[in-house]
Amino acid sequence: MEKKTIVARAKVLAEKQAAFLNATEALIQGTRAERGNISYTLYQSTENPSDFIFYEEYKDENAMSVHAASKHFKSFVETIDGMLAEEMVIESF
Amino acid sequence: MEKKTIVARAKVLAEKQAAFLNATEALIQGTRAERGNISYTLYQSTENPSDFIFYEEYKDENAMSVHAASKHFKSFVETIDGMLAEEMVIESF
Repeated sequence: MEKKTIVARAKVLAEKQAAFLNATEALIQGTRAERGNISYTLYQSTENPSDFIFYEEYKDENAMSVHAASKHFKSFVETIDGMLAEEMVIESF
Repeated sequence: MEKKTIVARAKVLAEKQAAFLNATEALIQGTRAERGNISYTLYQSTENPSDFIFYEEYKDENAMSVHAASKHFKSFVETIDGMLAEEMVIESF
């Protein structure tokens, strides 16, 4: 079993920050309830409040795929459509 | 040349948060001036203000070592001694 880490960075439009934060709540709750999730944390830049980063740890590759296929993740992606200043940068390690 | 990424998480004592943020300023400035640094960003958890994460990108392994040996990094480590609730978790990818 090899831990997988995802770092996902988002640049949110200034006027959409409250709506974005709101949309993350169900995503965070749903993800932390996944059996394969180790940690799932959202952070905001201390310099630019429009910059956010998700730091995510999963037990293995399969747990990461379960997350990507989950209802709460898919509905989050739909909900935030139009809230971002640019495409999210998602890195997995 | 293979980009190196560091993710460093810190849990700061509540009463030390302002001092910690203050100490990061010289570190961030110094690091961004390093030739091998690509990006260096500090984020704060949207849920727990005592939780911080540095997301750092370097051009290669050597650039990462230059950073670790730098005066601004070493003096930061000294300055924040006693400010953390637990040891920092530093991962490199």
